[in-house]
Amino acid sequence: MTRPGVTRRLAGFAVEFDRADIPERTRRAAVRTVTNAVSLAVGSSRSPACEIALETLEKLGHAGDVSLLGREERLGLTSAPLVTGVAIHVEDFDDAHLTTVVHPAAPVVPAALAVAEYVGASGADLVDAVTVGVEVSLRVGLGLGKGHFDRGWHVTGTAGHLGAAAAAGRLLGLDVARMVVALGVASTEAAGLQEAFGTMTKSFHAGKAAADGVEAALLAKHGFTGPVAPIEGRRGLAAVAGGGFDPDQIVTRLGERWEIDANAIKPYACGIVSHAAIDAAIALRGDCPEPDRIASVELRVNPVVLDVMGVSDPQDGLAAKFSVYHCFAVGLLDGSAGPPQYTTDRARADDVVALRRKVHVRLDPAVRRDEAWARVVDVTGDVHERHVGHATGSIERPMSDAALRAKCVGVALPVLGDGTAAFVDAAFDVDGLPSVAALTRLSVPRPAVAPSTTDDSAGAVNSRRAAGSGR
Amino acid sequence: MTRPGVTRRLAGFAVEFDRADIPERTRRAAVRTVTNAVSLAVGSSRSPACEIALETLEKLGHAGDVSLLGREERLGLTSAPLVTGVAIHVEDFDDAHLTTVVHPAAPVVPAALAVAEYVGASGADLVDAVTVGVEVSLRVGLGLGKGHFDRGWHVTGTAGHLGAAAAAGRLLGLDVARMVVALGVASTEAAGLQEAFGTMTKSFHAGKAAADGVEAALLAKHGFTGPVAPIEGRRGLAAVAGGGFDPDQIVTRLGERWEIDANAIKPYACGIVSHAAIDAAIALRGDCPEPDRIASVELRVNPVVLDVMGVSDPQDGLAAKFSVYHCFAVGLLDGSAGPPQYTTDRARADDVVALRRKVHVRLDPAVRRDEAWARVVDVTGDVHERHVGHATGSIERPMSDAALRAKCVGVALPVLGDGTAAFVDAAFDVDGLPSVAALTRLSVPRPAVAPSTTDDSAGAVNSRRAAGSGR
Repeated sequence: MTRPGVTRRLAGFAVEFDRADIPERTRRAAVRTVTNAVSLAVGSSRSPACEIALETLEKLGHAGDVSLLGREERLGLTSAPLVTGVAIHVEDFDDAHLTTVVHPAAPVVPAALAVAEYVGASGADLVDAVTVGVEVSLRVGLGLGKGHFDRGWHVTGTAGHLGAAAAAGRLLGLDVARMVVALGVASTEAAGLQEAFGTMTKSFHAGKAAADGVEAALLAKHGFTGPVAPIEGRRGLAAVAGGGFDPDQIVTRLGERWEIDANAIKPYACGIVSHAAIDAAIALRGDCPEPDRIASVELRVNPVVLDVMGVSDPQDGLAAKFSVYHCFAVGLLDGSAGPPQYTTDRARADDVVALRRKVHVRLDPAVRRDEAWARVVDVTGDVHERHVGHATGSIERPMSDAALRAKCVGVALPVLGDGTAAFVDAAFDVDGLPSVAALTRLSVPRPAVAPSTTDDSAGAVNSRRAAGSGR
Repeated sequence: MTRPGVTRRLAGFAVEFDRADIPERTRRAAVRTVTNAVSLAVGSSRSPACEIALETLEKLGHAGDVSLLGREERLGLTSAPLVTGVAIHVEDFDDAHLTTVVHPAAPVVPAALAVAEYVGASGADLVDAVTVGVEVSLRVGLGLGKGHFDRGWHVTGTAGHLGAAAAAGRLLGLDVARMVVALGVASTEAAGLQEAFGTMTKSFHAGKAAADGVEAALLAKHGFTGPVAPIEGRRGLAAVAGGGFDPDQIVTRLGERWEIDANAIKPYACGIVSHAAIDAAIALRGDCPEPDRIASVELRVNPVVLDVMGVSDPQDGLAAKFSVYHCFAVGLLDGSAGPPQYTTDRARADDVVALRRKVHVRLDPAVRRDEAWARVVDVTGDVHERHVGHATGSIERPMSDAALRAKCVGVALPVLGDGTAAFVDAAFDVDGLPSVAALTRLSVPRPAVAPSTTDDSAGAVNSRRAAGSGR
C-alpha cells in the first residue's frame, strides 16, 4: 500500500501551483463556493449550535482578533474558524461533491478566511487558498476510496482536515517540507462519524477540521515534526481509515483536472441525496390531490439515500434534515425545502407527520444519487408520477448565478437587513477585493434601533435565533 | 453490531461511581499514575515539541489562567492540557497498558488537571477523575478490539479522547445525558496514526486528546447535541474504526474490575515493548565482552516489537525511541535507557551505531510482549544469553514506590532543582491535597540567580532543553 510521494506531491501542488493555471470556470466555481459559504455563515451565525460553540470557546480562553462572520465578537485563529465552520454547515444548506459526499466549503473556507485576515491577504489570495484546499479535500476523499464513506466516516470531517491545512498552509507561505508536516498533523486528526448526523456534532466536524487545519499549518510553520507519508504510509490515514485506497485519484492530473468543478451548491437545506426527491415533490404540486387525499407515495432512489437519510420520524430540525420522508413531505406541502422547513416545529407539524408516514422508499442501485422517481397514489387509485433525472443544484443542473444570489440574500437578510446586498455583492466580487477584511467587515450587522452590543439586540436577529433548528 | 446502551452505561459509570468503591490498590495505582505523569510534564516542559506547541497556541490566541506544569506561562482550558499532554508523552517515558498499548495518563491527567484547577477541585477529586478517565480509555481501547491497534491506530489518541472527556466531564459535574454527549463529541474526534511514531506528532495525539476531551465536556455542559450511541451505533466509532468490537469489554464489571491496576509505569524512555530487551542488555553487561568484540546479537521477541519498534537506523532522538536495535545497544553500552539515551547525539554516536548494526531480531508469537530472549555471540564464538520473563515495570515486576520516586526526582530535577523533593512529595500526597493548585504551584521553578522571566534563564533549564530530543 505504501506509495511514497503521494503526500509530498499533494504538498507540492498546494505550495507551488500558480493562480494563472486555474481555468476561468474553476475560479468561478471557487468564488461561488466562497459566496455561498460566507452567506450561510452570516445567516446561521445565531444558530443554537453556534451560540453554544462560541460560549464554550470563550470559556476555554480563546481570544483574538479574527472576525466571526455576522457577529461583532472576535476570536482566535482556530476558534473563529471553528464557529464559522459550524455556521456554514449546520443547516446542511452549503455545498456538496456528490462522488465523495464531501461538503468542502465548511472546513476549508473558514480556515482560509481566518488566516487570510490574519496575514492581511487579498481576496484573490483567499480564492487561491480555497481552490487548493477544496482540491486537496476532494482528492483525498476520492483517494480514500468508496469504502471510507461506506464504513461510516463523515468525509467532510476526515478529508476536510487536510483541505483546511492546505488552505491555511498556503496562506502562511509554508514550503513543501512544512506543508507535508501540516498535512501530516492534519491526517492524524482526521475524524468524524456519520453516527452524528442529525445532531450539532455533524457541523462540529466541519468546524473542527477548519480549526485543526489552521493549527496544523501553524505548528508546521514553527518547526513541528510529523510523518513523511501520513496518507500513504504503512500506518497512514489510507491504511487505517481508507476503503479501497487509490493514490492515483489523489495525484493524477493534479492542477489540471479540478474537482471543485464538480462541487454543487445546494438549493435545499438537507442531505443532498434527497434533493431529487424534493424536486419531484415540488413538481407534483401542480397535479397532485390535496395531501389528505393521498393514499401512498413510493420513492425509487439510490440506496445511499436510506444510508444517510433514513430517519423515519424526526423530532427536531437537525434530524429532519436526514429524513427523506420529511424532505418529500415538505417539498409537496410547502413547495420549498429551505431552513424554515427544517425547524423543530415543522418536524412535528401534523400535516408533515401525516404525509411523511405515507411515504415508502424503494432502493434501486440503477438510480443515480441525484435522480429520483416518485409515484403518488390517491384515494381514488389514480396515479401521479414524476421522474427527476438530475436534481436542481447538481452539476448537470447547477444553480444559476441569479439563483445563487437569491439564496445568499435569503439566508443573510434576517441578520444583515439593509446591509445584505452590499455583503453579497462583495462576496461575488471577492476575487478583486484588496483585502479579505473588506468582506468580513460587511458581514457584521450595523446597529439598527438600539445601540450595538455583543448580544442579539436587533429584532431581525432574534427572529433568526427563533427560526434556528431546535434542540 | 448495534448494542444500545454501551455509551450510556459508560457515561453512567463515569458520573455516578463513588470514591468509596475504589479499592485501595486501585487508588494507589491512580496516584502513582498521576505522580509519574506530572513529574514528566515538569521534566519535558522545555522540550522542543512543547516549545513549538506553546508558541503556536499563543499565536492562535489561546489565553487563560490554567497552569502549565514546570512553566510560569498560563494558558486556556484546552491549550494548557495540549501542552501538558505533549510534555508527558514526548519522551515515551510515561506509562502503558500492555494489552491495549494505550498510554492513558498523557491524555487523561492533563484534562483532569486543567479542569480541576478551573473548578477549584481537591486532590481527591482529581484522583477520582483520573481513575474514571483512565478506566474509560482502557475499556474503550479493549472494546475496539485488537484489530484497531493492528490496523495502525494510535490507541492513546483514539481511546484517549473518550477518557479525557470522561475525566473533564466528571469534574464539570455533567449528568449522564450530558456525559453521553461529551463522549459522543469525543468519539467523533478520536484519531491518531501510528505512522507518526518517532515524530513530535505522536505526543501531539495525547495532547490533542486531552484538549479535545475538555472541549467536548464543556460543549456538552453548554447544551450541545450529539449521537446517542457514538461508540456502538451503526456508524459509530466501533463500526468505522474498530477491529473486532467487543462491547462486553467495555461494560462488564465496570466499577468492579479496574484496568488501571494493569497500567505499568515505564522505567525506560522508549516504546514499552522493547523494555524486556533492554533489561536483557543491562543484565548482559556483567559477563559480555567489550562491544567491539561482539560479533552478533539475536533478540527473540513478540512480533509487535518490530511492528512498532522497527526503525533500524534512527537519525534523531524521537526516532531512536522506536528502534529496538538502538534500545538494546544503549542498554548494553550505557546500562540505562533514560532520556539521555534518546538524544540525537546518542542516536548518531559511533559506538551505538556500530553495536545496533549487529543486532538481529527474530519474531516469535510464543514470546510475550513483556518478555525477551537475548543471545550475544562474541568474536571467539562464545555465546552469552539472557532471558527476561517479565520486563522491569511490567505488572508482574512493577517499579517500587522508591524506584518511582527516584525516576520522578530524576526527570524533574533539571527543571526544579532545590524544589524537586517538595514537588514530588506533593504529587505522591495528591489524594490528600485540599486543592490541585497546591501541586501545580510547586511545579513552577523558583527563580535562582537571575530574576524569573517567562524564558528559560536558569542554567538547569538550558541544560534540560539541550538534552531534549533532537529534531
